Amino acid sequence: MTVLRIDASIQGPNSASSELADVAEAEWLAVRPETTFVRRHVGNDPLPADAWSLALQARWLPEDQHTEEQRQAVELATTLTEELRQAEAVILALPLYNYGVSQHAKIWIDLAIAGGSQGERLLDGKPAIVLTTRGGGYGPGTPREGWDHNTAYLRRIVADVWGADLTLVERELTLAGVNPAMDALIEPAALLKKAAHEAATHAGRALAAR
Amino acid sequence: MTVLRIDASIQGPNSASSELADVAEAEWLAVRPETTFVRRHVGNDPLPADAWSLALQARWLPEDQHTEEQRQAVELATTLTEELRQAEAVILALPLYNYGVSQHAKIWIDLAIAGGSQGERLLDGKPAIVLTTRGGGYGPGTPREGWDHNTAYLRRIVADVWGADLTLVERELTLAGVNPAMDALIEPAALLKKAAHEAATHAGRALAAR
Repeated sequence: MTVLRIDASIQGPNSASSELADVAEAEWLAVRPETTFVRRHVGNDPLPADAWSLALQARWLPEDQHTEEQRQAVELATTLTEELRQAEAVILALPLYNYGVSQHAKIWIDLAIAGGSQGERLLDGKPAIVLTTRGGGYGPGTPREGWDHNTAYLRRIVADVWGADLTLVERELTLAGVNPAMDALIEPAALLKKAAHEAATHAGRALAAR
Repeated sequence: MTVLRIDASIQGPNSASSELADVAEAEWLAVRPETTFVRRHVGNDPLPADAWSLALQARWLPEDQHTEEQRQAVELATTLTEELRQAEAVILALPLYNYGVSQHAKIWIDLAIAGGSQGERLLDGKPAIVLTTRGGGYGPGTPREGWDHNTAYLRRIVADVWGADLTLVERELTLAGVNPAMDALIEPAALLKKAAHEAATHAGRALAAR
């Protein structure tokens, strides 16, 4: 049994999304201690920003005409695609940054798609937990309602494009207690944190029990 | 008079978004031949994927404690921010890739925001033309309706976050005539291309005449 875990936070040990993924992972391991985790931390160790176009260029050339750069890019894309194909489940910790998708997550998504065949459902029917976090509040009636351009996109790729059976765990207001301007939100933020951790616990346990 | 032009296509000379930006630029120059263009092609020459988190880390340290890597990252972010601040107008050719924002455009956005002050409106009231292209069709009633997660995001950053006076030019079905599965769409695609080029012409001329 193999689970692929991807983290895209740039907060290292202070990451709220990685913390949620740790909860899901621990619950999973409690049920299935024999699981092998394949891990990529694309926030700590970003994938290169030139590999995707090199890998796509290489598609139009016979293999023996690939440059060394193109060969490496194809190899990277193929590896990332294979990691999705081989996984029996995935745990993806992918925060919102600047109202959109993490640049590091998008590089990973582009490369993983480039390594597969056209329209390939890399996670067809397999369970996926996406844990996503937002520093501020984006709920109905808030000034930033509609400014979360990340969550719907992650759902689109993981569920619609890759075909996974998706469980989404979200946490907002993660900067309350960090950013002094959000001090009035510390209490609701604590409730949201508690709810997100419960959701991550449940998701990890439910997936492992399938 | 300075105009900043950013291209994020990975198609080089075959790019539909760059072609639209060329149209807008030519119209602009016809009215204001003395304009200086500052150009960045982040699709041909991607910005590095590790600079953004290095630049953010550096924020919490006194300058004389920055590592060489952090110093370079801060310098890059500051340069990108300054290019936006100094521009009197911007022309941004930013295609949709894999249903979302271009990875190279997102790296540029993150860095440009990192180089400014919190919430800074880098284009406050200045004219911006965003030219965006999509290989397929995403209109109402099509199977991919709602799958364009790029355009609304670009609008959010350029108009709402940076405060520009935005003119959006869109072109769909750019792969008709390239992808044989889209052969039936060649005629509507030609109409959309014509309309987009007219919109780019109009946008370039109108902006220069302000």
